Amino acid sequence: MSNRQGSLVSVRQDVRVVDCTMRDGGLVNNFAFTDEFVKDLYLANIKAGVDYMEFGYKASKEIFDPKKFGKWKFSDEKDIRSIVGDNKTDLKISVMADVGRTDFRQSILNRKDSAIDMIRVATYINTIPACIEMLEDAKKKGYETTANIMAVSKVNDGELEIALDMLGQSSVDVIYVVDSFGSFYPEQMERLCDKYLNVAVKYNKKIGIHAHNNQQLAFANTIEALSRGVSYLDATVSGMGRGAGNCYMESLLCFLKNPKYNKLAVMNFVEKHMLKLREEGVVWGYDIPYLLTGILNSHPSSAIQFIKEKRTDYSMFYQELMDNVL
Amino acid sequence: MSNRQGSLVSVRQDVRVVDCTMRDGGLVNNFAFTDEFVKDLYLANIKAGVDYMEFGYKASKEIFDPKKFGKWKFSDEKDIRSIVGDNKTDLKISVMADVGRTDFRQSILNRKDSAIDMIRVATYINTIPACIEMLEDAKKKGYETTANIMAVSKVNDGELEIALDMLGQSSVDVIYVVDSFGSFYPEQMERLCDKYLNVAVKYNKKIGIHAHNNQQLAFANTIEALSRGVSYLDATVSGMGRGAGNCYMESLLCFLKNPKYNKLAVMNFVEKHMLKLREEGVVWGYDIPYLLTGILNSHPSSAIQFIKEKRTDYSMFYQELMDNVL
Repeated sequence: MSNRQGSLVSVRQDVRVVDCTMRDGGLVNNFAFTDEFVKDLYLANIKAGVDYMEFGYKASKEIFDPKKFGKWKFSDEKDIRSIVGDNKTDLKISVMADVGRTDFRQSILNRKDSAIDMIRVATYINTIPACIEMLEDAKKKGYETTANIMAVSKVNDGELEIALDMLGQSSVDVIYVVDSFGSFYPEQMERLCDKYLNVAVKYNKKIGIHAHNNQQLAFANTIEALSRGVSYLDATVSGMGRGAGNCYMESLLCFLKNPKYNKLAVMNFVEKHMLKLREEGVVWGYDIPYLLTGILNSHPSSAIQFIKEKRTDYSMFYQELMDNVL
Repeated sequence: MSNRQGSLVSVRQDVRVVDCTMRDGGLVNNFAFTDEFVKDLYLANIKAGVDYMEFGYKASKEIFDPKKFGKWKFSDEKDIRSIVGDNKTDLKISVMADVGRTDFRQSILNRKDSAIDMIRVATYINTIPACIEMLEDAKKKGYETTANIMAVSKVNDGELEIALDMLGQSSVDVIYVVDSFGSFYPEQMERLCDKYLNVAVKYNKKIGIHAHNNQQLAFANTIEALSRGVSYLDATVSGMGRGAGNCYMESLLCFLKNPKYNKLAVMNFVEKHMLKLREEGVVWGYDIPYLLTGILNSHPSSAIQFIKEKRTDYSMFYQELMDNVL
């Protein structure tokens, strides 16, 4: 079992750090980041040696009203360009496209005409064929691609194996383990990653991890996955992300031993921008309601609502969850 | 390597949960807990099925001025009795005594005259003989005993092996792994626990874990230790403890599968008391300065000071740490 890859003191050259602050964090503040925030985050990521920065979603403007969301819900080419220009840096740019919620054939340009390097397709287990259609479109346009199977803690093993095999046979570069509900313990993450990694070996893919912090295990699960052989690691500055948030970029860069990673660049960004966000009342991060949705393997939306209403009757909330999710 | 004890769905009968909220949390607020807080915590622990509740330290009044600390720095028999009476419950009572800072021969009564069930002796690696003297005194008086070797992340392997062997030959019941600086990753915790567990097997002892949350790994490290075979698990309500605090009791009780544990009893206590403490300005828990002292394996005191001064210049703080601790 414990055939860990690499060690705690050396560098794993296959590691790629993906900053999802604007994409998962955008779910917290409706993508209302100032241009200064975005520009400074871009510069911080370059300085920090982060490998990919995800700017947001490629959502369909027919489905979502652009007046009701910040611009990073749509991540138009011109908006990305206004921050990165031609992006003559080592930092690659990614966006996420949800199956069924994007006009990918139109809104995703050919890579040679775009500042974007990688398209990440988010799918549930029941839309794998639609996911693969999007992945093949993106690959044909020249992009690196990832398939992010969300809510995998709700998926049964048999279906997961079929989905992984289908993705294995596709052109996708990276398949992601996504613990949407923050419900996995490291021991479970270990077993799950091994399953994905077996597919990776068979089909020559990479595996990624996207964790949530409902049980304060996002970082622990990320480094557990890493030690099994997972190499694409999602993190966000100060863990900013929906509900309990994600793996903290600060912690992850402290952990990684590659000297190219510079944790202080991220901490300087925290000092300048993240403390202000918190002061302005933007709320994310571990709290008891997220622990409860996490252990019940359920969507954090009810916990987000509980906190928004400033309720503190945890016991009653737990009873409500038991009625509604089990 | 991965010979985990027990499983994620069954009960490990050897597990003992130890609530250290007043003892480690007392280091945050100088032991200034109201009697109502203490009484309610006692009742919550009984209802929650917690196995031990640590009331505080048995500090010497010759060394520490009682006027300058709350009463749980000293945990006088009469003060414990005022809360627990004869404690006709399944919840056992523990106190901690620091080597060199306690008048143990006088202040620790015979167990038959005390409400206390367990004496926990906190020691550094260089005072193991003094620790054993205290342990033997407590054992002779009829107590259960533990030896807590603090700051073990600073101890070299050879010395640790000698210390563990000395403790193995003593009458102590439980030997604790104490990650005082919150510097261990789960993979390191696994290896360290295995070392302690080898001693436990040889000398018929139990092993305990006391983790700190500098890297948001206190809970992860605790369940990793548990899965190796460690059975005495320290936690505090809402992780209240010095600096970054400890393993959250809420998370731990959610994890454990023994139906005697009742997480909601603890959450009700959080609702009534812990939210108020936070509002009153009592500060503990994960923050960047603790992450930095954690990764540098150094005492959190400088981080506590940094936060007290409301500084946010993390980079400068890191440079100061590099000058002072490495």
